[in-house]
Amino acid sequence: MPCKHARRALWLLCTWVCFHWPSSAFADEGMWTLDALPKTQLQRYGFMPTQQWLDHVRASSARLSSGCSASFVSGQGLVLTNHHCAHNCIQRLSTQAQDYVANGFYAATASQERVCPGLDVSQLLEIRDVTAQLDAATQGLDREQFHLARKAAIAALERNCSQAPKFRCDVVSLYHGGLYHLYRYRRYDEVRLVFAPEFRTAFFGGDPDNFNFPRHDLDAALLRVYEAGVPAVTEQHLAWSARGIASGELTFVSGHPGATERLWTIAQLEDARERGHVEWLLQAAQYRGFLQHYASLGKEQKRVATEELFGIENGFKVFRGELEALNDAHFFSMLVEREQALRQRVNASAVLRAKYGGSWEEIAAALERFRPLRAELLAAEGWRGTPWWAKSPLFWWARTVLRGAEERDKPNAERLEEFGDSRLPRLEKGLLAERPLDRAFEIAKLTFGLTALREALGPDHAMVKRVLGVSSPEQVATRLVRGSTLADPKVRLSLWQGGAEALRASKDPMLEMVRAIDADARRLRAAYESQIEATITKNSERVARARFEVYGTSSYPDATHTLRLSFGRVRGWLERGRAVSPFTTFGDAFARATGQDPYALPSSWTEREARLKFDTPLNFVSDNDIIGGNSGSPVVNRRGELVGLVFDGNIHALGGAYGFEPERNRAVSVDARGLLYALQEIYGASRVVGELTLVP
Amino acid sequence: MPCKHARRALWLLCTWVCFHWPSSAFADEGMWTLDALPKTQLQRYGFMPTQQWLDHVRASSARLSSGCSASFVSGQGLVLTNHHCAHNCIQRLSTQAQDYVANGFYAATASQERVCPGLDVSQLLEIRDVTAQLDAATQGLDREQFHLARKAAIAALERNCSQAPKFRCDVVSLYHGGLYHLYRYRRYDEVRLVFAPEFRTAFFGGDPDNFNFPRHDLDAALLRVYEAGVPAVTEQHLAWSARGIASGELTFVSGHPGATERLWTIAQLEDARERGHVEWLLQAAQYRGFLQHYASLGKEQKRVATEELFGIENGFKVFRGELEALNDAHFFSMLVEREQALRQRVNASAVLRAKYGGSWEEIAAALERFRPLRAELLAAEGWRGTPWWAKSPLFWWARTVLRGAEERDKPNAERLEEFGDSRLPRLEKGLLAERPLDRAFEIAKLTFGLTALREALGPDHAMVKRVLGVSSPEQVATRLVRGSTLADPKVRLSLWQGGAEALRASKDPMLEMVRAIDADARRLRAAYESQIEATITKNSERVARARFEVYGTSSYPDATHTLRLSFGRVRGWLERGRAVSPFTTFGDAFARATGQDPYALPSSWTEREARLKFDTPLNFVSDNDIIGGNSGSPVVNRRGELVGLVFDGNIHALGGAYGFEPERNRAVSVDARGLLYALQEIYGASRVVGELTLVP
Repeated sequence: MPCKHARRALWLLCTWVCFHWPSSAFADEGMWTLDALPKTQLQRYGFMPTQQWLDHVRASSARLSSGCSASFVSGQGLVLTNHHCAHNCIQRLSTQAQDYVANGFYAATASQERVCPGLDVSQLLEIRDVTAQLDAATQGLDREQFHLARKAAIAALERNCSQAPKFRCDVVSLYHGGLYHLYRYRRYDEVRLVFAPEFRTAFFGGDPDNFNFPRHDLDAALLRVYEAGVPAVTEQHLAWSARGIASGELTFVSGHPGATERLWTIAQLEDARERGHVEWLLQAAQYRGFLQHYASLGKEQKRVATEELFGIENGFKVFRGELEALNDAHFFSMLVEREQALRQRVNASAVLRAKYGGSWEEIAAALERFRPLRAELLAAEGWRGTPWWAKSPLFWWARTVLRGAEERDKPNAERLEEFGDSRLPRLEKGLLAERPLDRAFEIAKLTFGLTALREALGPDHAMVKRVLGVSSPEQVATRLVRGSTLADPKVRLSLWQGGAEALRASKDPMLEMVRAIDADARRLRAAYESQIEATITKNSERVARARFEVYGTSSYPDATHTLRLSFGRVRGWLERGRAVSPFTTFGDAFARATGQDPYALPSSWTEREARLKFDTPLNFVSDNDIIGGNSGSPVVNRRGELVGLVFDGNIHALGGAYGFEPERNRAVSVDARGLLYALQEIYGASRVVGELTLVP
Repeated sequence: MPCKHARRALWLLCTWVCFHWPSSAFADEGMWTLDALPKTQLQRYGFMPTQQWLDHVRASSARLSSGCSASFVSGQGLVLTNHHCAHNCIQRLSTQAQDYVANGFYAATASQERVCPGLDVSQLLEIRDVTAQLDAATQGLDREQFHLARKAAIAALERNCSQAPKFRCDVVSLYHGGLYHLYRYRRYDEVRLVFAPEFRTAFFGGDPDNFNFPRHDLDAALLRVYEAGVPAVTEQHLAWSARGIASGELTFVSGHPGATERLWTIAQLEDARERGHVEWLLQAAQYRGFLQHYASLGKEQKRVATEELFGIENGFKVFRGELEALNDAHFFSMLVEREQALRQRVNASAVLRAKYGGSWEEIAAALERFRPLRAELLAAEGWRGTPWWAKSPLFWWARTVLRGAEERDKPNAERLEEFGDSRLPRLEKGLLAERPLDRAFEIAKLTFGLTALREALGPDHAMVKRVLGVSSPEQVATRLVRGSTLADPKVRLSLWQGGAEALRASKDPMLEMVRAIDADARRLRAAYESQIEATITKNSERVARARFEVYGTSSYPDATHTLRLSFGRVRGWLERGRAVSPFTTFGDAFARATGQDPYALPSSWTEREARLKFDTPLNFVSDNDIIGGNSGSPVVNRRGELVGLVFDGNIHALGGAYGFEPERNRAVSVDARGLLYALQEIYGASRVVGELTLVP
């Protein structure tokens, strides 16, 4: 996908390069589905989880609509995740007068818990194999026919499964279509904020320390899921380990890794290296410079811009690291050799050649066809409707109400993917949620975006002329942002419910601009999906099945944002010959603090400095195989108890989308002991401490 | 060189890929030294310049210390160049109250001409071959010995040649050391501004139209060289063509193309593709976003930031285009094949193999050795003393006075290159020139730079700690910029003259910071120059000489910022099947104007709209082979008269550092008729019009 980057939360690890290396060297590699754990590898640790253990861990795991992972940690719906996963909620609840990002948030009583607009939490209930149904629906079809038939079959399966808004069903492609599974989730759409520490401790060390270790972050937040206005009963939840974890101990991470490219073909990797990554990075770098300066103008500017800046800086580091891995000649030649080995096996067999020969070439040809369309598609449509330059939520609101009216009138199977019946409840929730809007910031962002759009397509492109006319980007941005009424959720609700008629009557300038470019955008998207994406999807399936036939199925699929279990140990590593210890403590955080951001601790810490137990563990690393989307995942011990909270990877994790390096790749977690200690001693959060440590 | 980018002005064209292609296909390719024109190719045009013609064109050509080209256009020292080449001077003469960039400048009388601080103009007097001397000095030497012996020989040759400050001598390496020539220049160090139009017409269309065509820019400025306070007598100068130029007519461009990489090895090109270009672009993109937002804050911020923003946007487009060329698989495989063909010829002969075998591998190995040092070298030393993050002139001033005291005490041969006797007069002039300094802007830039430095090396790096201590980048930037007295040229003069003692007595915070990191920076530079650069230089010479022996010498050397002549014709091209006409007119400019920047014409134009002859030619394209550094070059007809002024290339010129595409690559020029017309009808500049059109 051209813009899969956009949906990829935070950061990433590991590849096909190591896919078939001796298991002894890669004992800790793998993001396994819970129904197919690698028993031989696990035996090394002298531990084999029972079905009950697995069911308990599955039911205690959760996924946030923000793209992160989480876990249930009490019987009353308490959910643990990272601060950076809840940042958007904390930001939305903040105002100029009360900045919960800077000052933290704690609901001392149940009634102080605050609704997180637009956020929901999902819990995986069951998995069904639907490969046969999908195969039957697409047999013998190609390009547009293949695309439409597949889309219709998926939409039907998802709708039949979900039924009520409180369930959500996704058809998930594993091994790039080697298998199709139907995942059914329980969806909690009322989520409240319970606790968040100050940004200064949640992201201590900031961008400089991000993806580095030693690390000293209390990157944690507590949410609570509600049902009908009262806390949900969550019988299955993780107990807080009283003992904690020690160096060398076995650790499991149960979470939702977003995306890996370990099964990509060389043509796809080259495309990323030469175009996709470079283009994304250049856009991100420029936007980052813009946001940096915006945030430097004053306290209020910093407040409104920090979340986006934080996201961009994080993504920048990720893609930079991935690009470096792809530009490493030695590494890349290994990937090439492995593809060649598989292709030789396929070509050596008449049967395999007849079934799978030509798939690699078809993918390469589709990417070649895509090149001249790329800039236009990304500018008009981006990733499923959100172009990269449309940096204001006003654009997304306008496009969603506009398309919603058209799409909801169509049969489910013919709609744009994001308007399918199974996806509508979450879409609607996101659309109608309250969200503060700083118009000065929106104007600045949209001015930046429109200038970049003009550069990307040229001032004489029809779409650019339709958007800008004879005005400057700043004039257009000002007119659209100042004139739009879509910031009011009631306006969005009335347009969403009023459909075509209400839309025709509206004179909202953002709506009018979006309408003016919609036909072109839809045409480009349809051409891309039917002519390019369908070919890549279909031939990726063929490559995946060839790999099955040649190497067997004792391996894990690429990450797909579905629940996976990885296992490993608490373990430091050697950095240029120097041993990095796996734990940091509260004392280490004080030693690193300079008093200046991003190395300033909040006053809640500095005021208590003399009273704190400096040897309390704060962060630790383990060699679990994780990737972006795993943020917020619980780390559990062999008893299934919570011992940590994943929030990052070290610097060696950055090339990990394509290759897992067991000697240096590390997951970075908040130590559960440190978190509990901070809740008790620094934040006086006795209400939640009691709840977390309640022995059932 | 790691940072050759930094010195490369503006933009670039053409490569070794086409170096040995049939001459009929590349008739217009080549940046020829004036002593070695390709007679067979010129015969196609039925024209062979006489020695007198060549001497006249040479003596009428000029080079600016800003890196641009220019020409003498009257007998009283009048010099024609681009507005963007004089932008720095115009900016320095401007104040908040009188903004000559925005409003233009015209000296209606001789006494109103204003001195351009720090600018000088050079005229090439003679060329001498010194290859034998250099060869004798370095024979049998390697690495550090080679580097030191070569440096000493060059310094001696340059000093013996220059003698008086009004001469400047450079040893120039042609064909990467295939030949060494000694260039002797007459140096005019008193330069005054005579005329500049408003930025709105000089850069009409701004960044969106930059490198595009049709184009509508009056990118021209007039300077005057003085001697002892009176206009210099410049007998040799170009006459202004009364007739102008027509489509299909022969055009010569005489100028100083900066740098091409048409003779680079594949290892060097890969290094650029995978590291050099990507790193530069990412830094530039982020800085660009920062400057964009800074400039958007208000009129004064825009005034002080525009020149830097303009430079960054221009460089960004250049490197983006080059990177795309390097990532074009078809294009790159041609470069690989050509290198392989030469290497096969070398390997097939025992004699050639003994002399040149292994050179390619040595270059590749040197680049490999450089990789782990790269980030530190660039951060500490950058390109000959200016690291990329040190974005304030205060840094350069501090480092120059500090190093000047140490270097001037050494024998000429042992100094850092930029402090050699032959280079000192210009260095001193740049150091002591008046230059306005907006401290708010400097603090913002240095904050940006210090933040980026911390990111590049990590917060725990010794140099970062020495620069930042426990302060934030903003605190350090504020302290250095607010506290430094180096913005006063008198302070710089006293430190420059006072030497070590005056420096020891100074408590200037910028000086102290620069001193704190100087030993490390010098050590890194020395290691790079002796261990890496020397190997690349020496082996590039060997590759160049192998190429001579195999293919002969009937080809042109890579651009080296020395005077070159290219020839071609006024000619449009086919853009996606549509013919692009070679001329634009004043009427076209009005048709494209929207009234909003960058498509707003200045009021001097709009007020006269009704009276202007719309069919007057404004810009034109020709297929001359040019590159960055050629900006400001005169375009002359076969009579040696001025018909145009090069200011840009079209979009197809952007991959041109490595390959010249004759069908679409075009030089973009201001038409001399349009310029004269504007001077007369719009600017009422009758004094200079009379001087320009005076028939001797």
